[in-house]
Amino acid sequence: MSNIRHALNVKREDDFAKWYQEVISAADLAEESGVRGCMVIKPWGYGIWERYQRLMDDRIKAAGIQNAYFPLFIPLANFEREADHVDGFAKEMAVVTHHRLIADGKGGLVPDPDAKLEEPLVVRPTSETIIGDAMARWVQSWRDLPLMINQWANVVRWEMRTRMFLRTSEFLWQEGHTAHATREEALEETHRALEMYRACVEDDLAMPVIAGEKPEHERFPGADETWSIEAMMQDGKALQAGTSHYLGTSFAKAAGIQYQDSEGTQQLCHTTSWGTSTRLIGGVIMTHGDDDGLRVPPRIAPHQIVILPMLRDKPEDADVLAYCEQVRKALTAEWSMGEPIRVLLDKSPGKAAAKRWEWVRKGAPVIVEVGPRDMSEGKVAVMRRDALWNLENGKTAMSFTPRDEFVSGASKLLEDIQDSLYAEARDRRDANITRGLTEWSEVAEFFRSNGKYPGWVEVQWAKPTGAALEKVVEQLKAEKLTVRNVPRDSEAADGTCIFTGEKAVERILVARAY
Amino acid sequence: MSNIRHALNVKREDDFAKWYQEVISAADLAEESGVRGCMVIKPWGYGIWERYQRLMDDRIKAAGIQNAYFPLFIPLANFEREADHVDGFAKEMAVVTHHRLIADGKGGLVPDPDAKLEEPLVVRPTSETIIGDAMARWVQSWRDLPLMINQWANVVRWEMRTRMFLRTSEFLWQEGHTAHATREEALEETHRALEMYRACVEDDLAMPVIAGEKPEHERFPGADETWSIEAMMQDGKALQAGTSHYLGTSFAKAAGIQYQDSEGTQQLCHTTSWGTSTRLIGGVIMTHGDDDGLRVPPRIAPHQIVILPMLRDKPEDADVLAYCEQVRKALTAEWSMGEPIRVLLDKSPGKAAAKRWEWVRKGAPVIVEVGPRDMSEGKVAVMRRDALWNLENGKTAMSFTPRDEFVSGASKLLEDIQDSLYAEARDRRDANITRGLTEWSEVAEFFRSNGKYPGWVEVQWAKPTGAALEKVVEQLKAEKLTVRNVPRDSEAADGTCIFTGEKAVERILVARAY
Repeated sequence: MSNIRHALNVKREDDFAKWYQEVISAADLAEESGVRGCMVIKPWGYGIWERYQRLMDDRIKAAGIQNAYFPLFIPLANFEREADHVDGFAKEMAVVTHHRLIADGKGGLVPDPDAKLEEPLVVRPTSETIIGDAMARWVQSWRDLPLMINQWANVVRWEMRTRMFLRTSEFLWQEGHTAHATREEALEETHRALEMYRACVEDDLAMPVIAGEKPEHERFPGADETWSIEAMMQDGKALQAGTSHYLGTSFAKAAGIQYQDSEGTQQLCHTTSWGTSTRLIGGVIMTHGDDDGLRVPPRIAPHQIVILPMLRDKPEDADVLAYCEQVRKALTAEWSMGEPIRVLLDKSPGKAAAKRWEWVRKGAPVIVEVGPRDMSEGKVAVMRRDALWNLENGKTAMSFTPRDEFVSGASKLLEDIQDSLYAEARDRRDANITRGLTEWSEVAEFFRSNGKYPGWVEVQWAKPTGAALEKVVEQLKAEKLTVRNVPRDSEAADGTCIFTGEKAVERILVARAY
Repeated sequence: MSNIRHALNVKREDDFAKWYQEVISAADLAEESGVRGCMVIKPWGYGIWERYQRLMDDRIKAAGIQNAYFPLFIPLANFEREADHVDGFAKEMAVVTHHRLIADGKGGLVPDPDAKLEEPLVVRPTSETIIGDAMARWVQSWRDLPLMINQWANVVRWEMRTRMFLRTSEFLWQEGHTAHATREEALEETHRALEMYRACVEDDLAMPVIAGEKPEHERFPGADETWSIEAMMQDGKALQAGTSHYLGTSFAKAAGIQYQDSEGTQQLCHTTSWGTSTRLIGGVIMTHGDDDGLRVPPRIAPHQIVILPMLRDKPEDADVLAYCEQVRKALTAEWSMGEPIRVLLDKSPGKAAAKRWEWVRKGAPVIVEVGPRDMSEGKVAVMRRDALWNLENGKTAMSFTPRDEFVSGASKLLEDIQDSLYAEARDRRDANITRGLTEWSEVAEFFRSNGKYPGWVEVQWAKPTGAALEKVVEQLKAEKLTVRNVPRDSEAADGTCIFTGEKAVERILVARAY
């Protein structure tokens, strides 16, 4: 394999962080905007986000949740009324203080001192409180429940250190907010949303995750329960890929979301919220990228098959183009994984070889090249991006396939690629979860001695609270470790707590994280 | 007809502005948010916007334009470099000056004086300049052209007087931005976008429009040409429903968007931009609303057919529900106007009659009621929202139709409603354009004496410029009139200018406008 010349300059094993930045640039996903902490999401990157949006939105709507839109700006008072909320994360925020610019007389512009807002407005870091206000208006009686709302929006959290997709000052997300009559119904919704996330991220993004409950100290401020899905990146770190919160009645109390029950008594609603963001694109990159660029799972690929005509500025070019157009048309009539196949016939100027490598770096699942000889033989040259190399000879693996056979097999081919990307990531994840460590010293030593990519460990603990928990968090922090979650589907505890030696009550995943 | 008891309290003819507000509230489209100038778009209103987005986005993508996403915040410097731009509209804007809140010691929060931004950031009023910056980075050679980008985003313009959907401080829109090698190609794109808007607004929103060029004084600041589509509301006022600008090379010059042509020479790009916004929802309301609420054209209706089971808390309820579910399922297997029919079986609590009027006010195109007797006869009771009343007896017009006949005819029924809403609006528009006035005094008198809803007049002018144009604009302004556009498809001028008596060069539409 050493004779393979990969498309990127940096390999994952050499410098994962630098490799990540190179993929983003080489796959044309995003770039710095010149505005601090904000990125430009370029068409290929945005196309992947749009695919995610469509697939997730279908799931959201299928669950009977309605989309709506709430203001970008939130009055200060909304943050002031919830002490927990403010202390938790609502500090680093973009604050609008003026509503007009005027010329400064030196060719520049400045905020107009006469246009200072009486009360500053905050650019939403989340819409929890403003949607809470609306729910308080909309819910009167038990007949109005459950009230289930979702919003797709941009939000802003002023971040000091940013990394594209993973942590940017502005990012795109969806936030679900629901109100219910009872604790049971709200908990059911919390779990439904979590399961929806697990299914979409695993099935559509081909990113295996572990769903579980966050420990107390990692809860969303003010939440009674926080659940997450956690994915393992190729450097062994964890990425929190989605969260679902049961908020009890505390947010309902702060916002006044109450209903009259069937006996005429006023009751507080039980609320939930759940969200996923453009951070998922960072997860896709770090799950499926390789040393040649990105590999986009077919379900979220804007183009699933890219056809490259090999043109030579000769008369037969027209025939090659016509042949490619026939293949394109035949493919678009085929369906794969419940949708028509998305095909691009790339007629842009440039040599086919250069264009091939562009699409390799971008990670189109299937790349098809067609030259005069292929045409005369009624064939196409097919490359699977997930299995790019012929490991025996170090060349790109290309299968010369009769056109009709390719077209009729395309649906299955895309499905195979989707499955194989998932299986590869799942197997890697499973191979990198270490179990059986029973002492904290062993865990610390494990992460210290297992090089750059130690993966995760699953251990048992006594679920400490209060001061005991604080001590544990300090211990973990010293090793740059965090508790990811208590896996929903893990076996019952049967050992002792790695921190205290007491009888363990549950299993936890410990890892370094983004 | 006087015995009809309409669902709204205010009639269009009595107080159009008040009627507009009542429709928004009665149809559950939007509400005040408590944040100055910002509205909450409620699920039914947002669902209509989502339908528009989907249909317009399909058209945008079909034209080979790619979606991308650019930062919410724009540095001051971007506004400073374009004097025209700044003078034109870039004054009333939300300005972010701080990136942190701190406790004020009195239980409140204030912007942290230590977290003042070195350079304030403006919340985008449009992304013209920031997309221009990106284009300057992305375009190097003629091979990179045309570069065609679209963004769906929220934008903010601080408005002093706001009206829901029509003029809000924050609104949602799409903005297309394209760069081309030549003037001809850029003009072609300007017209392609205009025609795309005309087609989508007429075919999908059933809103007839007149496409034409804006006169010089109504151009987008800095544009060489501005084209618009103009729709007539039921009060006879004009609503600018979309604009498409040919920007020449001036924006390219300001942002440095240039390319090397095939001979190696650096050239400035010719750019265009075009946009439509949530204002269109205001247009849908004022085009299709009636004294019973909204009437949503089927193509943009989130639910095209709403089935209401008439339940009586009796054992046969289950049978009625099962029968309704059969009808629902059969309908979802049918397609209309290129898409599967969207059906809601509304099982929410409440009496069928109350729910019927809720859906009448919301404007679901078809409302179907099913009671035990309908079921036993194998029928359904069908109401067309666009023809709600039996004018002979003043009751709601209900057609008792055999179930299978209704299901198999549903596709055609929805098409008929779509066509009929369009025809009704077009006929009203055409009947309210007055032609043949040849003197300014006649025009002024026409608007003064034709009551509340005078409609538009089409007149001829000599296309004045400079001081002559300014005088004309003053004359118009005194009568609260504006020139809407020079209709693209109008006949050549054959008379004299109403303002100067000179030989006319073109026809213009004059109207009051939103």
